[in-house]
Amino acid sequence: MSPATQTSVPTETLLDALHWRYATKVFDPARAISVTDWQALEDSLVLTPSSYGLQPYKFIVVTDPVLKAQLRPVSWGQSQITDASHLVVFLARNTMTEAYVDGYIDRVAEVRGVAKGDLAGYRDLMVGNLVENRVGLNIPEWTARQAYLAFGQLMQTAALMGIDACPIEGLDPKAYDQILGLEGGDYRAVAVCALGYRSDADKYAALPKVRQRAEALIERR
Amino acid sequence: MSPATQTSVPTETLLDALHWRYATKVFDPARAISVTDWQALEDSLVLTPSSYGLQPYKFIVVTDPVLKAQLRPVSWGQSQITDASHLVVFLARNTMTEAYVDGYIDRVAEVRGVAKGDLAGYRDLMVGNLVENRVGLNIPEWTARQAYLAFGQLMQTAALMGIDACPIEGLDPKAYDQILGLEGGDYRAVAVCALGYRSDADKYAALPKVRQRAEALIERR
Repeated sequence: MSPATQTSVPTETLLDALHWRYATKVFDPARAISVTDWQALEDSLVLTPSSYGLQPYKFIVVTDPVLKAQLRPVSWGQSQITDASHLVVFLARNTMTEAYVDGYIDRVAEVRGVAKGDLAGYRDLMVGNLVENRVGLNIPEWTARQAYLAFGQLMQTAALMGIDACPIEGLDPKAYDQILGLEGGDYRAVAVCALGYRSDADKYAALPKVRQRAEALIERR
Repeated sequence: MSPATQTSVPTETLLDALHWRYATKVFDPARAISVTDWQALEDSLVLTPSSYGLQPYKFIVVTDPVLKAQLRPVSWGQSQITDASHLVVFLARNTMTEAYVDGYIDRVAEVRGVAKGDLAGYRDLMVGNLVENRVGLNIPEWTARQAYLAFGQLMQTAALMGIDACPIEGLDPKAYDQILGLEGGDYRAVAVCALGYRSDADKYAALPKVRQRAEALIERR
């Protein structure tokens, strides 16, 4: 399943992609992401690392123009919501339960062909740390942080494929939950990413990228 | 500054790297990441997207064996802390202040060559939303989520370079803050990433990767 060796991508290519990407302000509404490219972006979401491997999140992919139009007014009216080819709404779990951990253990047993009994120690560690919460985590925030790992990976994968993205945190989470039918459920909306292709009219694409100097951000010890 | 066009990386190469990566359990303590490669990883940290571009975080890079040895017992004793070539400790800001926003506005003005006065609207929006907190954010969690975008991007960049990584959330944040001298300051430790090269002795490297089925994670609308 996993390739034994890794074909490294030249660092110049990697960094060029990170310079090229920007939070797209104006998408070209006429350009859609192809089915093949979209599949790769979804694969990238599924492959994101998460704490214990638990993946305590879901992703809603929105392409329906009617639904996009409903989401736009509760996303500070931002045009990217309706003009981008695809939206990914990031949902984080509200709780961590024994049933959820058991479902994950079932999956590990299935994929790795091991007996569930052999995973009892791992199961009990997760139940103790996360369900009984012996380590004092804020569970809804811990799940949101995991969703943000997927958020970061999605934007980077898109950039490396030459696909534009705009991360959007400016949204009314309760209105999202209502529109998406999440109220009273196990998941809530925490952020959305718009993906597609920049419009030639987006003057922000040409502006120099603003970042703090490395020495202001990074300390070596 | 930004390349006008993007050289796309083949999706197969991207997905191979995501399959190849895994949370490394045993690092080869004899293999160090080269200076050139490390520089690219730091560049990737600096280039991470963040909300409003504010980068409300810092990164401490640890290579000193003495400091690593101090951090290991407060990281659930995990061997990756001492055996990996480099650690990146992710620090998130505790607050968002007018002074911090002004520092960012100074940087935007400098990089883009615009007058600060022309950025007054943007400044006031950030001060209103984040300092006066009109949108009701949990600021320390919002900063931690931004740090997790950097965390995700760092792991993906490493994988694409053929460098191994292990994300580590199992740590005592207060002990980290004490050891790193962060107590009473503006930043706190939220997570750590160990980076280096897998040991041939790590049997986890060969195990099939466990992920939920795409249909359990992704809903299309």
